[in-house]
Amino acid sequence: MAQLPSRWYFEHITPSLKLVSELTKILYVGDTKYQHVEILESVPFGRSLVLDGRTQSSEADEFVYHEALVQPGLVALEDPRTVFIAGGGEGATLREVLSHKGVELVTMVDLDQEVVEVCKEYLPRHHQGAFRDPRLKLFHQDAGKYLEDHADRYDFIVIDIPDPLEAGPAYLLYTQEFYGLVRRRLNPGGLLVVQTGPCGPMYHRDVFTPVHHTMSTALPTVAPYSAHVPCFGLLWSFILAGERYDPFSLSPAEIDARLAARCVRELRFYDGVAHYGLFNVPKYMRHGMAREGRVITKESPVFAP
Amino acid sequence: MAQLPSRWYFEHITPSLKLVSELTKILYVGDTKYQHVEILESVPFGRSLVLDGRTQSSEADEFVYHEALVQPGLVALEDPRTVFIAGGGEGATLREVLSHKGVELVTMVDLDQEVVEVCKEYLPRHHQGAFRDPRLKLFHQDAGKYLEDHADRYDFIVIDIPDPLEAGPAYLLYTQEFYGLVRRRLNPGGLLVVQTGPCGPMYHRDVFTPVHHTMSTALPTVAPYSAHVPCFGLLWSFILAGERYDPFSLSPAEIDARLAARCVRELRFYDGVAHYGLFNVPKYMRHGMAREGRVITKESPVFAP
Amino acid sequence: MAQLPSRWYFEHITPSLKLVSELTKILYVGDTKYQHVEILESVPFGRSLVLDGRTQSSEADEFVYHEALVQPGLVALEDPRTVFIAGGGEGATLREVLSHKGVELVTMVDLDQEVVEVCKEYLPRHHQGAFRDPRLKLFHQDAGKYLEDHADRYDFIVIDIPDPLEAGPAYLLYTQEFYGLVRRRLNPGGLLVVQTGPCGPMYHRDVFTPVHHTMSTALPTVAPYSAHVPCFGLLWSFILAGERYDPFSLSPAEIDARLAARCVRELRFYDGVAHYGLFNVPKYMRHGMAREGRVITKESPVFAP
Amino acid sequence: MAQLPSRWYFEHITPSLKLVSELTKILYVGDTKYQHVEILESVPFGRSLVLDGRTQSSEADEFVYHEALVQPGLVALEDPRTVFIAGGGEGATLREVLSHKGVELVTMVDLDQEVVEVCKEYLPRHHQGAFRDPRLKLFHQDAGKYLEDHADRYDFIVIDIPDPLEAGPAYLLYTQEFYGLVRRRLNPGGLLVVQTGPCGPMYHRDVFTPVHHTMSTALPTVAPYSAHVPCFGLLWSFILAGERYDPFSLSPAEIDARLAARCVRELRFYDGVAHYGLFNVPKYMRHGMAREGRVITKESPVFAP
Repeated sequence: MAQLPSRWYFEHITPSLKLVSELTKILYVGDTKYQHVEILESVPFGRSLVLDGRTQSSEADEFVYHEALVQPGLVALEDPRTVFIAGGGEGATLREVLSHKGVELVTMVDLDQEVVEVCKEYLPRHHQGAFRDPRLKLFHQDAGKYLEDHADRYDFIVIDIPDPLEAGPAYLLYTQEFYGLVRRRLNPGGLLVVQTGPCGPMYHRDVFTPVHHTMSTALPTVAPYSAHVPCFGLLWSFILAGERYDPFSLSPAEIDARLAARCVRELRFYDGVAHYGLFNVPKYMRHGMAREGRVITKESPVFAP
Repeated sequence: MAQLPSRWYFEHITPSLKLVSELTKILYVGDTKYQHVEILESVPFGRSLVLDGRTQSSEADEFVYHEALVQPGLVALEDPRTVFIAGGGEGATLREVLSHKGVELVTMVDLDQEVVEVCKEYLPRHHQGAFRDPRLKLFHQDAGKYLEDHADRYDFIVIDIPDPLEAGPAYLLYTQEFYGLVRRRLNPGGLLVVQTGPCGPMYHRDVFTPVHHTMSTALPTVAPYSAHVPCFGLLWSFILAGERYDPFSLSPAEIDARLAARCVRELRFYDGVAHYGLFNVPKYMRHGMAREGRVITKESPVFAP
Repeated sequence: MAQLPSRWYFEHITPSLKLVSELTKILYVGDTKYQHVEILESVPFGRSLVLDGRTQSSEADEFVYHEALVQPGLVALEDPRTVFIAGGGEGATLREVLSHKGVELVTMVDLDQEVVEVCKEYLPRHHQGAFRDPRLKLFHQDAGKYLEDHADRYDFIVIDIPDPLEAGPAYLLYTQEFYGLVRRRLNPGGLLVVQTGPCGPMYHRDVFTPVHHTMSTALPTVAPYSAHVPCFGLLWSFILAGERYDPFSLSPAEIDARLAARCVRELRFYDGVAHYGLFNVPKYMRHGMAREGRVITKESPVFAP
Repeated sequence: MAQLPSRWYFEHITPSLKLVSELTKILYVGDTKYQHVEILESVPFGRSLVLDGRTQSSEADEFVYHEALVQPGLVALEDPRTVFIAGGGEGATLREVLSHKGVELVTMVDLDQEVVEVCKEYLPRHHQGAFRDPRLKLFHQDAGKYLEDHADRYDFIVIDIPDPLEAGPAYLLYTQEFYGLVRRRLNPGGLLVVQTGPCGPMYHRDVFTPVHHTMSTALPTVAPYSAHVPCFGLLWSFILAGERYDPFSLSPAEIDARLAARCVRELRFYDGVAHYGLFNVPKYMRHGMAREGRVITKESPVFAP
């Protein structure tokens, strides 16, 4: 009889739902000034980054998350040259951005230098050397403070930060105030993308619909989309927003042509067809958005459960 | 301090991956002639049917699974009147079929009468009384044998059976021989739909791609699609097939118009927009299908891990 | 391949240690005025009573717990006729007491009538009909209040209540004040026994040693002992106390002779030999007791972690 | 809210019972020629050695196991000078043996050199440098073969090997043949001790009672005893055997005097009182032994479940 697996990682999706994977290595465990950090390795997911007990991404499926987060926005823009990334410590969001050869400058602001150092060392398949690209300017401070203090504008702004946990540092970047600030830092025609938490049938009202409604009060166009990222255990949501954005203005073939012309990496999840899969979201998500009225502000935050 | 939950249901997605939910009730546990049957209730999913240790559907998200399984095919057909269901013991596939008022006759063949009786009693929110509809003819025998023995033809055939487990009774209905038989039982222009197992980044080659390839050897057109069903813990695949079928021949508005004209229930997951989300599958699924060469036959079966 | 078990009960021994058993039935779940009550059935333990998430006893090993709790005291007494039980809702402590034919009157005070009713219905192998014995007088109120209000004295007093959880109703019965009160309710030569929580190498200082020290400030003689009760996941402690008590004053043969003369049931755990196993506790327990200085009072309670 | 623990080690006590501890480090995982080896660290137990999925000992409670295994036999012997250890890779059995200053020569035969090397490196608190003691002769081969090939005799023989798993290398050392061989390798008056698996109410008939009965067919005196070792999750059994041995021939004070005179370490679990706790085993164990008739031979082995 083969031995039963005995080491397990429990991802606490909610207090009543866990995704449990066979653990092979505990590569790093530590506390930074801001959060609890783990680099774990499991049979189904390979290496993953876990912050405050929540998986941020894993080797097995980070390509779904990071391509979905970055590629639709970059492809939609006519000629994106300057990109701002808030968070993204694994370096995989950066990797996706840099894969577009037209990008000339990436300003990445991740609060937690220690997380970035840990990812550099333990997650080489995530960043694939992106941190050494000369187009990168990397800062370690609060992304909101950076954007307040620097009036630079960008073609594309990516908010790749943890869910708005009550205990964590991220929740202030899910507010109306922050989205208003971001809007002022976009070049004309520029786009903003945000990862906005789970959006499956049971949990889309926890974070996704209030963030969607809040963004819609701060920016003229907001386009939600969803993808299944297995290590999160749930369907995941994203919102792309700007002065005007129509996710269906380019045909699948046009998207593929832009990728062929601009992107130097072979993508694994995203292309023209997958784009239409992303943005045609289930009816229950649209129903939830239509009935949502909460506006998230500093004074009335919303926390992930 | 609130008490920690202490009763848990472990869904064994793979030997190294589990979806774990807080268990509130064990409503039924028993062994039929064919399989181990459980009706469980959990905090995140409500009541669910578990066969041989695998969740078949749950109250919280069965609407995603059953609408995705049934509605695209019924909507695509010009005037579906006769439907054959293999499996579907919960009665929710039947419920979806009967929601189309043009349907005149449903022949449902589920091997396991005991499962159907248990579902009738314990899963009223699934079947919603569908078993009492006079359009239903219900038989309890092997669906393959029934189709062999009866030359009736159908507008729509739905294969809603468990995954092809080595120990279970279902694997013979995932073979080239079976799909050839089903093709001969379709009316001209008729359609077949099959639930075809997980299709996320890590597991789509286990069952989905070989079944897809096998179906493509037996029917002229095969259209794969995917949806996230939380209680399965993974992205789930379906394949709609027939003499000819183009999932994009109807616009979202045309799909909505057909639903409005034909379907007497308000759907929660499926409509014209969701349809485009279903059929525009991720690139890695298409990549996996393109490289798949296995043809499943009785002599060379493929089993879910 | 046999199906893996999928339903599990997690006993939270500590936040970092769980005893996990395969769950077969959830017979009862409810909240009384005082606590959360579950009657569960598992493969290793059969039926068990769980209060506020802590197993109180199980069919498979309650004989160890209840014989260890009751028999040493009854055997030590010359002619025990009147017994007071605080708690003991399962009725198994009562069963052990009534097994001594010389016992004429048992006053049992369990705060929670609903728990007793649930146990009567679901735990017949525990109580074995003891609640119908005419020697029993059963009251439902706080045992401390009852003893304050009634000046009756007893030959033997058994404190069979849950651990002193911060949230639960029991902690006030682990105080110096309470033990002083109990002493005044003992007949001359009478004995008191208390279940006093885990006492294995890692956890004996949490509850056992402070309770031991507290009892030693309230009663002249305190004799600790320990037994392994599997469903608790740890070695378990008890303390027998009185004006004077020497656990080794009777030889094993004398204990067996008293049992043969007085006890109408065949015991499964306890006899003269087992008695010597109980009271000769490990060195680390004696070391822990020797270094303990905490006295538990209403104003300075000690809680189980 | 403090973060819930997310990394867990599952000790598979039986298919239906697990002891689950919070995992802090995976220090070593590997396969030797003979078995799967893990060195893990958990919150409740510290570092532990796990062979083929079974915990052999842990820092938090190995003192109970190793003192219980070694000290009663050494104390009982008049003047033990030569000791043979089969297994004992952690080096803690060796440490206990060497703590007796009269011991002049220890022959330790552990099949698996790699396990010993791993323990030397990762379990310093177990061996405490014992492997460097000049009184040790360490061999890596089958202990049964060694005893067959070498006619040396010993004052004390310790069998400290894994449970008789069907897949593992140990089961042949739980046979009548082996115990007969061991008897021929004892000096006059010499003693043998064996760890003999779980002996709680539910599992003592799996390994303990058949091994006890088998030993009783091979040696004139067999004295079983039990101790609670938390990391095993169950009460644990040992058997001390020889031409003649009476566990109660020395009083507690005499045992303490012998320890004071001979043993250079301060013990934490064992002394004269604890000795009487060990050997006065529960009635159900004696009842199980009395009804046991199985004799384990090479042709009719007994395996741990």
